[in-house]
Amino acid sequence: MELVIKNARVYHNHRFEDREVLIQNGTIAQVAPRVDAPAGYQVLDLGGKRLVPGFIDVHTHGGAGVDVNAATADQLNNTIGKFFASQGTTGWLASVLTDTPEQTLWCIEQIKQAKAQTGDHAQLLGVHLEGPFLASEYKGAMPEHLLQKGNAELFRRYAKAAEGSIKYMTVSPEVEGVPDMIRQIAGEVVVAIGHSGADYDTAMACIDAGAASATHTFNAMKLLHQHFPAIMGAVLETDVYCEAICDGRHLHPGTVRFLIKCKGLDRVVAITDSIMAAGLPDGNYKLGVNDVVVEDGDAKLASNGTRAGSTLTTGQALKNLVKFTGRPVEEVLPLLTENPADLLKMGNRKGRIRPGWDADLVVLDEDLTVIRTLVGGRTVFEKA
Amino acid sequence: MELVIKNARVYHNHRFEDREVLIQNGTIAQVAPRVDAPAGYQVLDLGGKRLVPGFIDVHTHGGAGVDVNAATADQLNNTIGKFFASQGTTGWLASVLTDTPEQTLWCIEQIKQAKAQTGDHAQLLGVHLEGPFLASEYKGAMPEHLLQKGNAELFRRYAKAAEGSIKYMTVSPEVEGVPDMIRQIAGEVVVAIGHSGADYDTAMACIDAGAASATHTFNAMKLLHQHFPAIMGAVLETDVYCEAICDGRHLHPGTVRFLIKCKGLDRVVAITDSIMAAGLPDGNYKLGVNDVVVEDGDAKLASNGTRAGSTLTTGQALKNLVKFTGRPVEEVLPLLTENPADLLKMGNRKGRIRPGWDADLVVLDEDLTVIRTLVGGRTVFEKA
Repeated sequence: MELVIKNARVYHNHRFEDREVLIQNGTIAQVAPRVDAPAGYQVLDLGGKRLVPGFIDVHTHGGAGVDVNAATADQLNNTIGKFFASQGTTGWLASVLTDTPEQTLWCIEQIKQAKAQTGDHAQLLGVHLEGPFLASEYKGAMPEHLLQKGNAELFRRYAKAAEGSIKYMTVSPEVEGVPDMIRQIAGEVVVAIGHSGADYDTAMACIDAGAASATHTFNAMKLLHQHFPAIMGAVLETDVYCEAICDGRHLHPGTVRFLIKCKGLDRVVAITDSIMAAGLPDGNYKLGVNDVVVEDGDAKLASNGTRAGSTLTTGQALKNLVKFTGRPVEEVLPLLTENPADLLKMGNRKGRIRPGWDADLVVLDEDLTVIRTLVGGRTVFEKA
Repeated sequence: MELVIKNARVYHNHRFEDREVLIQNGTIAQVAPRVDAPAGYQVLDLGGKRLVPGFIDVHTHGGAGVDVNAATADQLNNTIGKFFASQGTTGWLASVLTDTPEQTLWCIEQIKQAKAQTGDHAQLLGVHLEGPFLASEYKGAMPEHLLQKGNAELFRRYAKAAEGSIKYMTVSPEVEGVPDMIRQIAGEVVVAIGHSGADYDTAMACIDAGAASATHTFNAMKLLHQHFPAIMGAVLETDVYCEAICDGRHLHPGTVRFLIKCKGLDRVVAITDSIMAAGLPDGNYKLGVNDVVVEDGDAKLASNGTRAGSTLTTGQALKNLVKFTGRPVEEVLPLLTENPADLLKMGNRKGRIRPGWDADLVVLDEDLTVIRTLVGGRTVFEKA
């Protein structure tokens, strides 16, 4: 797509600046007070509205009625991905809940196919494996009988089938073999720790081995005691990224403020952890093999009432972050853009508005509502 | 005292610089590469050793065999204060444990007398009242029957008797009347919150009312849950000072690192919370009305094994901070010097080596051992 964006307040250098953006072949070619647009280029006049990097969601199980663990390639892009684009998401990982090897391989195949397609939807960036190397005590919505000991061979079986599409994996430090597995695979996949009651030393051993992130921080995680800092103390003390579900349910607004204060604005990654119910009314849904009931937007396992994912969207997460923190949107935008890009080692082409970066962009209205989403310079959503 | 300190590495601008220090009338008169010393001034040549501000301990119950709640004015200065000087403490608050009004008033009288004296000891800066407005559920070593509801009149009765010597008081936010009491007295005394199971909103209300500090952070305090951040979340999220007992027992070293990361090096105050057993061997001691047993340096109530203060010294706290954090001594020195001074609103004359500041100084050996302590320019301790 050849395109010039004019009359925009562009998020650049962590502030909004009057800039024009030239897009060529899906890539940002120039960001300058005035760009040289070849004749015949399409012009998009934003009327002074804010242009920000597209949101990247590294942890979601679905939306718009489709569950990632049961989604076909077409549904991943044209149902989930289309819905996500309407919320400002331009790139996402499909979080595959712990499942049988057969079903996991089927999911990987669907994601691999969907990832290769372009269309009017958010770009599927790859797989997030949430399990199966998880602790039963902190399993959340994971089916217990499918949990596994650390096993680099099983991971590599999945990775081979995925042909490079597995970008991220959540493991529990205390599960037998996991620290050693991290040492073996940390160069091949970004590893998160979570769903865990790990003690401090075990969690630190995993971070030292290469774990780079904490899964839905504080949730399904052993909390800090001053004598036993546990996994919570380890992930707060170190420089790992911390996922945060900013829906006002998983984390009290004060907990979000505390997390940002402790970790810094460059080390918190806003995620949705959304399930198929996102974008739909209350009712009965699925999350992997589980039955889930959503009441007042709050998703819980039908079996025991454990909270099971969210109905949050990235667009709402941005509004919540501004509301919860009292910070200007300029300060919290990295949590949805450059931080997840950097976590996934895609920060050299996604998450920022810079020459050479992918033209994944979002236009915000005055109240921070997403009114247009572009993926690779192509408008994939426009608010009616 | 008229004195010039030469050949010193002076802690100045948060780093060590080659400076000379001129002391006149107990006050630092000049800090410069070379100072103009009038003829006849005493010269102290440090042989290149480090000169740092004297340590200030805002929370201690005694040492060298004397318990603050039972100490005479003479014992406060010539037993406790002398011992403290040997550890690098130049200024301290005597922490009066919750006691009967009669005994509390007796303690205040002793402290008031001791505060007016000078001698070869650390300077007693005033009273820290640890209670009686505390919650029974988190009372620690406080005698339960002596705990009181928030009562500004009772505080003012003590304050009047103390004639300005009550500098600091610990209260529990959830105790009836306490938030209102803080609003009334926050201009008269520095208020700390602690010994508390307060919920987040109640703790925040006390901080909004003027509470400026958290007492022995994490210890005797309700811990954070992501849905209920509690007093821990409130004190971490806000800019209040956080006391920390860095003896390796009250706080895991990882907890110390996490606290400093979250609060910043300018908002953590190292305290000893020491009891009469500090500086003495294991054995049986008193803490206020309680019997305490010290084993392997660890002090616990004889009645139920609750940890009851420490045997830590300020000098050891500095060494521990360097060891626990891996940071250079330059970075952690404020926790023992300018932070407590600023907390007590004495930062305009204590806690720093600057012209116009009190000449309260410590000379450190290569291994950070205190080898000389000066109070008001007078050497009150010199290592044999």
